[in-house]
Amino acid sequence: MSATIHRLDARPQPSLDSMVKLVAGDLNLVNAVILDRMQSEIPLIPELAGHLIAGGGKRMRPMLTLASARLLDYTGARHHRLAASVEFIHTATLLHDDVVDGSDLRRGKRTANLIWGNPASVLVGDFLFSRAFELMVEDGSLKVLKILSGASAIIAEGEVNQLTAARRIDIGEERYLDIIGAKTAALFAAACRIAAVVAERPEAEEAALDAYGRNLGIAFQLVDDAIDYISDAGTMGKDAGDDFREGKSTLPVILAYARGNPDDRVFWKAAIEGHRSRDEDFEHAIALVRSTRAVDDTLARARHYGQRAIDALGSFGPGKAKDAMVEAVEFAVARAY
Amino acid sequence: MSATIHRLDARPQPSLDSMVKLVAGDLNLVNAVILDRMQSEIPLIPELAGHLIAGGGKRMRPMLTLASARLLDYTGARHHRLAASVEFIHTATLLHDDVVDGSDLRRGKRTANLIWGNPASVLVGDFLFSRAFELMVEDGSLKVLKILSGASAIIAEGEVNQLTAARRIDIGEERYLDIIGAKTAALFAAACRIAAVVAERPEAEEAALDAYGRNLGIAFQLVDDAIDYISDAGTMGKDAGDDFREGKSTLPVILAYARGNPDDRVFWKAAIEGHRSRDEDFEHAIALVRSTRAVDDTLARARHYGQRAIDALGSFGPGKAKDAMVEAVEFAVARAY
Repeated sequence: MSATIHRLDARPQPSLDSMVKLVAGDLNLVNAVILDRMQSEIPLIPELAGHLIAGGGKRMRPMLTLASARLLDYTGARHHRLAASVEFIHTATLLHDDVVDGSDLRRGKRTANLIWGNPASVLVGDFLFSRAFELMVEDGSLKVLKILSGASAIIAEGEVNQLTAARRIDIGEERYLDIIGAKTAALFAAACRIAAVVAERPEAEEAALDAYGRNLGIAFQLVDDAIDYISDAGTMGKDAGDDFREGKSTLPVILAYARGNPDDRVFWKAAIEGHRSRDEDFEHAIALVRSTRAVDDTLARARHYGQRAIDALGSFGPGKAKDAMVEAVEFAVARAY
Repeated sequence: MSATIHRLDARPQPSLDSMVKLVAGDLNLVNAVILDRMQSEIPLIPELAGHLIAGGGKRMRPMLTLASARLLDYTGARHHRLAASVEFIHTATLLHDDVVDGSDLRRGKRTANLIWGNPASVLVGDFLFSRAFELMVEDGSLKVLKILSGASAIIAEGEVNQLTAARRIDIGEERYLDIIGAKTAALFAAACRIAAVVAERPEAEEAALDAYGRNLGIAFQLVDDAIDYISDAGTMGKDAGDDFREGKSTLPVILAYARGNPDDRVFWKAAIEGHRSRDEDFEHAIALVRSTRAVDDTLARARHYGQRAIDALGSFGPGKAKDAMVEAVEFAVARAY
């Protein structure tokens, strides 16, 4: 008897296709809930919410709820409403994020705050957040409500933590991991964990799915951070250099700063404080993250969390769902290459 | 046998003192929950939240939960946590409101958005909102969760409705009542209703307390609207003319516009669109709301809702709690005189 060992270097060209295919039918039902529950008598609400919700997101978090439910052979329908709730929480945070960052582009489209203004984005975010809780209340599980209200509080704390770290070069890797653990990974973890709750599985399986989602979320975010220093606009729908020009202390910057010589540190400090945003500055930044191996090692960190995500699934039996969830991790960490 | 008929003109100098005295012990316990649960490892959160929460609010909504529980002779402790939750929802909406309106003063103090910036106010609002739901989940009543998540969605809808009505003179009384019914009265209603839920009273008593809170909320808001056209800074901690200068179509304006001659309407339209914000303009506005009896009739409308609030308590037995709740209504409508 031999165990199946999933290693991150397994597939040459991993994609999200297996997961998309696995949950396609369920995702249609989730989308129907989303469309139905973003309606309101106030026309601006579905108009603004629809711009973002229909705007080309991957539905990563609801897909994780659905795939996790598949992994557990759950045959009910409760996860459709809850996956929609998770997507509403995510959409609300994106709306508020774009206000906080003053962003004007998301997923290659103009942001809602640019089109309708900050006040509308704040308030429609609040509406979607309330709707998310209404959906959970309709489901009726206090355990799910506890998981998602807890995740929401942690996300908000992470956002405030990030805000107080803004434009500071000296935040360090540990605090940065705290921030993305709260901002990004907490909802990935909750999205997976609630599938175990609706499937009425033991705490150990809840914890395993939580760990899968949490580590995947961190890996996703770290690869996003790395991509900002290697991709070009054509490939990712996100301009390389956005984080740099916005003065974000992401892990590539934190590592390059820590490993740099005194001149490099002067440069990074000025850049993060907003005084180095020309194209030449970004080219210099790219050169520094390369020479210090800061991007390579950001991706190495991502692979570490990706492998932990895969190993968290170890106790679940083999099958299409598990394969798709493993490949999603491979995809997450391979996007940068 | 003769019934006690409560009529709004009962007391010459009503105040909130009876209610404050009635709930003082409970309110200390609520304040302890509030103080405990606004804490976070991220120092900006308690700092910013504390500015507003400690900043001289009347705690009207938690007091309503506590007084309603007294009215029902509830002897448990669940309402302390839930009253704190209600105050967190209210505080979150105030933080977001001030961002939306770009306000720089609230309760005579500088607003959080002025001191810490809009991003911090948005995110700490989100945190308090999440905390509110965590408190409800700890209480564990799905019925309370349904009432407060529903109220939150209605508040957000009302805010968006108000936003799309901003700087428009032609919104009309009905739509205005819809807006304040959602923005202000929904949380007053929910704050009262949840007391009946924790006291395990029949639906009719829930509905009666809901009606009390809802009508009181509308009365409160209408009197606030009237005060903006009659008070001076010394008496209310709120500058007369704030609504006027911010171009808010409140009921005094809506009535004065509807009753005005063509010249008056030209003036009001320009004022609400932001082209008449000098002191002379405000003096002219005062003259118009007086000559059209628009303020008097706004106050008459407030008395109508106030009387409905009092009558909603009709089926509850006499006692200190009922007296205090009646006097709170009298106070709400008498503040303008």
